[in-house]
Amino acid sequence: MTAPSPPRGFEEQEFEARAERLQAGMAAAGIDLLLLTTEPDVRYLSGFDTPFWHSPTRPWFLLLPALGPPAAVIPEIGAPAMAATWVTDIRTWPAPVPADDGVTLLATAIRELVGVRGTVGVPMGPETHLRMPLADWSRLRASIPEMHVVDATPTVAAVRMVKSAPEIAKIRHICHRAGDAFDALADIAGEGVELSSVFRRFRIDLLERGADDVPYLVGGAGPGGYADVISPPTDEPLRPGDVLMLDTGAVHDGYFCDFDRNVAIGRADDAVRRAYDTLHRAVDAGLAAIQPGARCSGLFTAMAAVIEGDGYRAGNVGRFGHGLGLQLTEWPSHTRTDHTVLRPGMVITLEPGLTIAPGRTMVHEEDVLVLADGAELLSRRAPREMPVI
Amino acid sequence: MTAPSPPRGFEEQEFEARAERLQAGMAAAGIDLLLLTTEPDVRYLSGFDTPFWHSPTRPWFLLLPALGPPAAVIPEIGAPAMAATWVTDIRTWPAPVPADDGVTLLATAIRELVGVRGTVGVPMGPETHLRMPLADWSRLRASIPEMHVVDATPTVAAVRMVKSAPEIAKIRHICHRAGDAFDALADIAGEGVELSSVFRRFRIDLLERGADDVPYLVGGAGPGGYADVISPPTDEPLRPGDVLMLDTGAVHDGYFCDFDRNVAIGRADDAVRRAYDTLHRAVDAGLAAIQPGARCSGLFTAMAAVIEGDGYRAGNVGRFGHGLGLQLTEWPSHTRTDHTVLRPGMVITLEPGLTIAPGRTMVHEEDVLVLADGAELLSRRAPREMPVI
Repeated sequence: MTAPSPPRGFEEQEFEARAERLQAGMAAAGIDLLLLTTEPDVRYLSGFDTPFWHSPTRPWFLLLPALGPPAAVIPEIGAPAMAATWVTDIRTWPAPVPADDGVTLLATAIRELVGVRGTVGVPMGPETHLRMPLADWSRLRASIPEMHVVDATPTVAAVRMVKSAPEIAKIRHICHRAGDAFDALADIAGEGVELSSVFRRFRIDLLERGADDVPYLVGGAGPGGYADVISPPTDEPLRPGDVLMLDTGAVHDGYFCDFDRNVAIGRADDAVRRAYDTLHRAVDAGLAAIQPGARCSGLFTAMAAVIEGDGYRAGNVGRFGHGLGLQLTEWPSHTRTDHTVLRPGMVITLEPGLTIAPGRTMVHEEDVLVLADGAELLSRRAPREMPVI
Repeated sequence: MTAPSPPRGFEEQEFEARAERLQAGMAAAGIDLLLLTTEPDVRYLSGFDTPFWHSPTRPWFLLLPALGPPAAVIPEIGAPAMAATWVTDIRTWPAPVPADDGVTLLATAIRELVGVRGTVGVPMGPETHLRMPLADWSRLRASIPEMHVVDATPTVAAVRMVKSAPEIAKIRHICHRAGDAFDALADIAGEGVELSSVFRRFRIDLLERGADDVPYLVGGAGPGGYADVISPPTDEPLRPGDVLMLDTGAVHDGYFCDFDRNVAIGRADDAVRRAYDTLHRAVDAGLAAIQPGARCSGLFTAMAAVIEGDGYRAGNVGRFGHGLGLQLTEWPSHTRTDHTVLRPGMVITLEPGLTIAPGRTMVHEEDVLVLADGAELLSRRAPREMPVI
């Protein structure tokens, strides 16, 4: 039986708490005003929910002062949707107006909220970008020349990394729906089925099981492993002995799952079974290493020890997992050099990968919640032995 | 009967021609090297195709010198997929490495391709953003202090706006598939059906009809019009007298359609019928105004004349249509101030909107190819009278 969906949206207190946590971080970092421009950052703080971010035409700005609620400086087309959020200070212009697409309005709002000498925090570090034309950013800087701009990435990341109970419920829900779809993979994949057809049927199956959307679906198939883990499908039919991997980021109410499954078509040779077993034990090692106070670098080391102990080289993904939430991938990264400390409420993936043979790779991925006393799997764990369908 | 899909991908000559057109524009603008960072720009020039852009973790760089093919500076995880394109100069680093996520490698490539005093063009104008951390951009600038950076938006836009025959075939194809789905809307929508269910069924229907994905689906429903044209659906059931609008950006092989349909549930009152008729005639006026040499501002004026002549105010969208291609919306915009000259091969939408009553709006949209002697509708035209389902 399918679990009921958690309620959509969040209570206003959730957004107030997010603002207060951000403001505590701003105070510690000496930031007077936070400027957010990307979909996940704006949505996190405001609840503003629209697929319209697909259109690159219009910039959107959300400002959080040191005290009090945020102010939105947005295109007129977004006013009704923003008015449905907890944000009440909504300033609009009739975008697109390339000659001045919100720059003057934004500068006015900044001056009003923080003066001309304020310290404005903008996410400009790892995993961020500024979603506005670079020339407009230069114009904004020039129009408030004494504005001091600092990197707000650590402030935003520290808050967004730790999920609230309602956020976790949404991620758990979409993980379960995707797990159901993976469990039914034998219904849509098998010898002779084109890989592109498997992708299409899997996407439809996820929607029918209640996913809002399936923005991310990649995978591969090949004899003894696949060459590549980020490509769209080919029209090649699956053949006996192929390893099929699907990796999906499906969404419920804005929150992603991100995990994969590996299955063998018809039969699995020993090299493939061994690689699967190694990766399964690497995930075990990652799970065992999760506790508050542990570091992402420690998770990496624990997983790498299993892989290297079995004589494999790591794959080409560059890390063994990452944060998960409003984005398919978020801070932190499980690498040798990311020493982020795990805290209860963080949602991460464990994603060890290895090279089976030149050009043949395998990746396992599970989604995990960090608890006060360990870890909770949000994705239903992959079978211990490689499934053959 | 469903038309067969056009072939996927492009011949290598297509990419060579794109590079040569960009290089001609670069020469005219005094640009020695073009630096591209976003999915559509990188895909346009290289053919690099991956949903992995959903992960914000890693930056991707593509460099086009004044002569010859482009060079890719990308994370190692993308090497197999990039090697499948026409790009042969592929330089990788094991991202993510926040301490130096490609900056040194990129700086080295820039110095090698153009020296330390070259003029580097970067899209930084309307509808663009720089998809890399702003702090890394500053580091790059600091590491090549004599590098001259100019805005490449006009150069890139002028080339991308005019589509090749294979590009047009992909857009036409997805327009037809979406048109078929819209024609079957009565099968999935009607009195008592929740709006969220209509969205879900429509998305599934589009996938079953062959769309690769449906990244963009918005709409609204309400008595006498809808309040908002960019929101996701509510769980409210459709009621007699509601106007239902769905607007979709479905994708075939990377290329979008973008058009909508309005239908009435059970019955349509006179005010709604009149608004529908006005918008239909506004699209007629837009179509009649399309010819090479005409300007986007002229299309706006032609459509606005019909809307204002019927006594309406324009809606809150800010424009009456836009370019279409690898992005849901691209340059140009049909506004009073965008004087872009139409050229054969441009694919645009006509999207007049009006306010029926306070908080009640209606928008029509069709997709159109600019021909040497007029226009070809790529979307099957909406019925002249408002359909009632």
